Amino acid sequence: MAARKPIIGVMGPGRTEVHTEPVDKHVELALELGKQIAAHGWLLLTGGRNIGVMDAACRGAKSAGGTTIGILPGPDAMDISDAVDIPILTGLGSARDNINALSASVLVAVGMGPGTAAEVALALKARKPVVLLATNPEAEKFFSGLAPGLLHVAGDVEGAVTHVKGLLA
Amino acid sequence: MAARKPIIGVMGPGRTEVHTEPVDKHVELALELGKQIAAHGWLLLTGGRNIGVMDAACRGAKSAGGTTIGILPGPDAMDISDAVDIPILTGLGSARDNINALSASVLVAVGMGPGTAAEVALALKARKPVVLLATNPEAEKFFSGLAPGLLHVAGDVEGAVTHVKGLLA
Amino acid sequence: MAARKPIIGVMGPGRTEVHTEPVDKHVELALELGKQIAAHGWLLLTGGRNIGVMDAACRGAKSAGGTTIGILPGPDAMDISDAVDIPILTGLGSARDNINALSASVLVAVGMGPGTAAEVALALKARKPVVLLATNPEAEKFFSGLAPGLLHVAGDVEGAVTHVKGLLA
Amino acid sequence: MAARKPIIGVMGPGRTEVHTEPVDKHVELALELGKQIAAHGWLLLTGGRNIGVMDAACRGAKSAGGTTIGILPGPDAMDISDAVDIPILTGLGSARDNINALSASVLVAVGMGPGTAAEVALALKARKPVVLLATNPEAEKFFSGLAPGLLHVAGDVEGAVTHVKGLLA
Repeated sequence: MAARKPIIGVMGPGRTEVHTEPVDKHVELALELGKQIAAHGWLLLTGGRNIGVMDAACRGAKSAGGTTIGILPGPDAMDISDAVDIPILTGLGSARDNINALSASVLVAVGMGPGTAAEVALALKARKPVVLLATNPEAEKFFSGLAPGLLHVAGDVEGAVTHVKGLLA
Repeated sequence: MAARKPIIGVMGPGRTEVHTEPVDKHVELALELGKQIAAHGWLLLTGGRNIGVMDAACRGAKSAGGTTIGILPGPDAMDISDAVDIPILTGLGSARDNINALSASVLVAVGMGPGTAAEVALALKARKPVVLLATNPEAEKFFSGLAPGLLHVAGDVEGAVTHVKGLLA
Repeated sequence: MAARKPIIGVMGPGRTEVHTEPVDKHVELALELGKQIAAHGWLLLTGGRNIGVMDAACRGAKSAGGTTIGILPGPDAMDISDAVDIPILTGLGSARDNINALSASVLVAVGMGPGTAAEVALALKARKPVVLLATNPEAEKFFSGLAPGLLHVAGDVEGAVTHVKGLLA
Repeated sequence: MAARKPIIGVMGPGRTEVHTEPVDKHVELALELGKQIAAHGWLLLTGGRNIGVMDAACRGAKSAGGTTIGILPGPDAMDISDAVDIPILTGLGSARDNINALSASVLVAVGMGPGTAAEVALALKARKPVVLLATNPEAEKFFSGLAPGLLHVAGDVEGAVTHVKGLLA
C-alpha cells in the first residue's frame, strides 16, 4: 500500500476572534499557503469554518487541486467552509483544537488569537513541530521559550513551506 | 463548487470486543460493504483501527479505489489500519464514537458489541439514520423501539446499500 | 487520607428526548433513587440538566442532604439543574456521555432513550456495572446479551440500591 | 436553594512537563494557594493528577478543609492525586483542558508549560478571567496582548487571591 499523504494543519484567527494583527494580511498569506500545501501533494487540515484563516487556506488549496479536511467545532453542517472536502463534525467546541494538534504532522499558525494559541500550545504539548508565520514577536518569544526544539519561525509563505519540507523529511 | 461526496460510516466490533455473532462473517460483510461504498462514489468513515469490521471495511473500499477516513480513539499512529487514507487522531477514547455519529450521513452497523451499540445510540440521539446489517433480533427490536423512523434493517450487503441510496436521495 | 465517597451515576431520558415509557413514573423513581443515594453517603453524578430523570435524581439527593455532580453537555451555565452542587461544563455535547460512564463506579439507568442507551453502552464498553431500573424488556434483553456479567435488572428503587451496595462491596 | 460555591481552577506544570521555572517554587505557591482557596469557601478544580502544581494545590486545599475536584485526562483511576475528593475521569487526554477552562469561574496559572499555556489560551477563548502567578515576563506579555481585559498578573499568593476575590464580586 502506498504511503499516506502528510497532513499539514493551518491554524489562525477567524474574523470574529480577538487578534493582534490585521486579518486581511493573514487571509492573503493563508490563501497562498493553502495553494503551496496542495502543490506539494500534502493534505490540508483546518478548523473548517467559513471564516478567516481556515477558510482562506482551504480556498487556496482547492484552487490548486488539493484535498481539504475540516475539523469542525459544531455538531452540524452550519458554518462549514465551502472549500472543505471532508468535514469532520466533532460537536466538541474548542476541545476539538486538540484533534487538530494530534492529527497534523506539522502545524502552521498564521496570525495569532486565543484559539490559535491554544492549538499551538496543544501541539507543543503533544511534541508536534509548529511553524509560526506572521504572528508577533511576543508569540515567538513565548512559544520558543516553552519548546525550543519544536518551534520554528517564518517571515513569509516560502519560508514556512521550507520549514514544513524539512520537518517532513 | 462541486457538491461534497457523502460520508458513510461503517461500525462494528473489533476482534477483542465482546460481541454476539461470529466475527468472520462480519469481516466478510464489511469487506463487501466497503467495496460497494467506494463503487458508489461515497467516502467511507470508520473507527480506523487495524482490527475487525473497521479494518475490513477500509480494505474493501481501498480495493475498489475508494477513499477512507479513520476516526481513531488514540492520540498517536499506533493501531491505525493500513487501509485508512486519512487518519484523524482524536485522543478521545470512546468519546470519539460521537464524532462518527455526527460526521456520517448514514451509519451502517455490521454486527454488534458495546462500542457499536454506543455508536448506534449516539447516531439516533443526533437524529441520524442507521442501518443494522447482520446484527441480531434483540438489537433490531431494541433500537427500532427507540427511534422507529430512523432505524433500518438489512439482511445482506445489497439490502444495506439500497437503504443507504434511499436515505441519501 | 480518608477513602473517597463512591460516585453513583443516574441516567435517564430528559423530557424532550424520544423515550418508550411514561416520564412521570421515571421522575418519581429518580427522586426516590437520588434520596437513597444520598442517604447511603454516596455522591450522585448525572447529566446535570434541569429536565427529566437527571434533574429529579439531583433534587432527591439534595432533599436528603447529599452532594450532586452534573456533567453538562453545554459550554455555559444555561440549563443547569438548580439541584446540581458541582457543575462540570464540558462543552462536548453528547461526547460527554463517556465521562459519565467512566467517572461513576456504578451506573443506574432509569427509563430508556437514545442518550440513556448510549451511556449504558459506553459504560459496558468501559467494563462498568450497570443497573437497569424500569426500562423495558427489549432493553433488558439487548444489554444482557451484550455484557452478561455487568448488567443487572431491578424492578424498584430498593432493588436498584441493593444491586449498587453489592457492586460496591 | 443556596447559591453554589464558586469553582476556582488552578493550573500549572506537572513534574515531567517542559517548564521554564523551578518546580519547587511552584509547588510551594500552589500549596499555599490551595489553602487560601479552601479558606475562602471556594471549590478547587485542577487537572487531578498526583504530580506538580495540581497535586500541591489539592493537598493545600485539603489541609484547610476544602473540597477538591480533579478533571483527569485518563480513563481510569491511575495517577489520581490522593488529595482529590471528586475525580472526574474524562478519558479525553489533553482535550480535557477545555473542561477546566469552561468549568472554573476564574483560572489561576502557577508557573508555565505547554499544557498550562493551552489551558490559559482556552480560558481566554471562552472569555474567562485568568490570573498568572509566578509565570514569566514572556507569558505575561503574550497573554496580555491576546486578551487585555481578561488577563491579571500576581506576584504572590496574596495578590492572586485578591484578584480572584475582585473577579468573583
